[in-house]
Amino acid sequence: MTYCVGIQVNTGLVFASDSRTNAGVDNIGTFSKMHPFVKEGEVMLVLLSSGNLATSQSVVSRLQKDIKNTAAEQSLFKAADFSEACAYVGEVSRGVQKQHAGEDQQNSVNVGATFILGGQIGQERPKLALIYPQGNYLLATAETPFFQIGELKYGKTILDRIVEPSLSLEDAARCALVSLDSTSRSNVGVGPPFEVLMYRRDSLRIEQRFKYDLETDYYQRLRQAWAENLRTAFYGLPRFDWERDD
Amino acid sequence: MTYCVGIQVNTGLVFASDSRTNAGVDNIGTFSKMHPFVKEGEVMLVLLSSGNLATSQSVVSRLQKDIKNTAAEQSLFKAADFSEACAYVGEVSRGVQKQHAGEDQQNSVNVGATFILGGQIGQERPKLALIYPQGNYLLATAETPFFQIGELKYGKTILDRIVEPSLSLEDAARCALVSLDSTSRSNVGVGPPFEVLMYRRDSLRIEQRFKYDLETDYYQRLRQAWAENLRTAFYGLPRFDWERDD
Repeated sequence: MTYCVGIQVNTGLVFASDSRTNAGVDNIGTFSKMHPFVKEGEVMLVLLSSGNLATSQSVVSRLQKDIKNTAAEQSLFKAADFSEACAYVGEVSRGVQKQHAGEDQQNSVNVGATFILGGQIGQERPKLALIYPQGNYLLATAETPFFQIGELKYGKTILDRIVEPSLSLEDAARCALVSLDSTSRSNVGVGPPFEVLMYRRDSLRIEQRFKYDLETDYYQRLRQAWAENLRTAFYGLPRFDWERDD
Repeated sequence: MTYCVGIQVNTGLVFASDSRTNAGVDNIGTFSKMHPFVKEGEVMLVLLSSGNLATSQSVVSRLQKDIKNTAAEQSLFKAADFSEACAYVGEVSRGVQKQHAGEDQQNSVNVGATFILGGQIGQERPKLALIYPQGNYLLATAETPFFQIGELKYGKTILDRIVEPSLSLEDAARCALVSLDSTSRSNVGVGPPFEVLMYRRDSLRIEQRFKYDLETDYYQRLRQAWAENLRTAFYGLPRFDWERDD
């Protein structure tokens, strides 16, 4: 499994991802699912990937090659705007899937991959998109300021309650970490290290990028505080009418 | 969708369920998924149902008929112990599914249903079981003191953090309500009224049974307090090293 989340707030974007991959419980690996593509001062894009790992690796590799190949017709650094970048990633993804699906008609392996792409191109405002395996995409809005891919249900409730456009970048990053922590507690298919990247609007460079594992001091303190604060929140709930108020 | 949870603590059992059913978003209904079978002083059993509604209704109807039919070979009130009751419910469920699957081979409708059965028979300790569509079942243990059926992921994280055998019946009931509330916030397929039933060990009768909807005073206060307490829990988390402590 995988769990990635992208959050769009007024002051910028936050990206977070776990690093566990598995093809059955006896075949577990660690792969980063966070791929920044940055040309400082011009383009700052981050891709989060879920689904078939071979597909998402091929897509990332193709995006990197197109950037290096000055003769390439399209690349993330040549996109005129964010929509063009989304459409290009969708097209690359479809191409890779088509190739592998073709070679694999006897087996029922799902070669689909879903992506979150976010960032800023030039003077556009920062944007966040969910790119489907079919290559089409959705943009985040003030009403729907975050996207999740992979094992999303466990960690959705806290995002639903906390995330809104006025949130600070730091609070958005903390909320993403809490969401990852809750998911990894309930599903062994999602696990550390957790990566968090913060982008501040109009900076056109990465603001902060962290990798947290179970030994990282801040993540340890966050985990423990969240567990304690949740218990306090729970035990502070109103009692049933027949319970003695003690 | 459906979301039901059964919790086993040292002092008894808690059952909770939502009431929303849907076959597509344009076909939404309200059906109770909580079915108590009580012979005071002898048998106290509660069945929670998920999956195909026609199947679960037929199963409940058959269980009720067998209780009324004094000539029936088996019934929930004739079971010698809890395991026998589980096996019997599993058998009835398989029979109902087989009948409908047989009549429906052209269509791909899933007639499967999953149940939680819990309660106490005579002097046995209270027990809780998850009954699969195949008719086999799992019993709850101190390490796994709760079962969920239906749309379970959204509401699992709070149960994972709070539920343990030493919890009071009231806290277990509150935790089940919080879990239902969080699920219904994140998934419109799960909705009120929410039913909660509490069984106190060795009483062999229902201790408390409630139905909460959005207008119920206690549920309103609980929802609001949980939303506020969660925000307090979140905003009380440790800050990143570079954030000013203000």
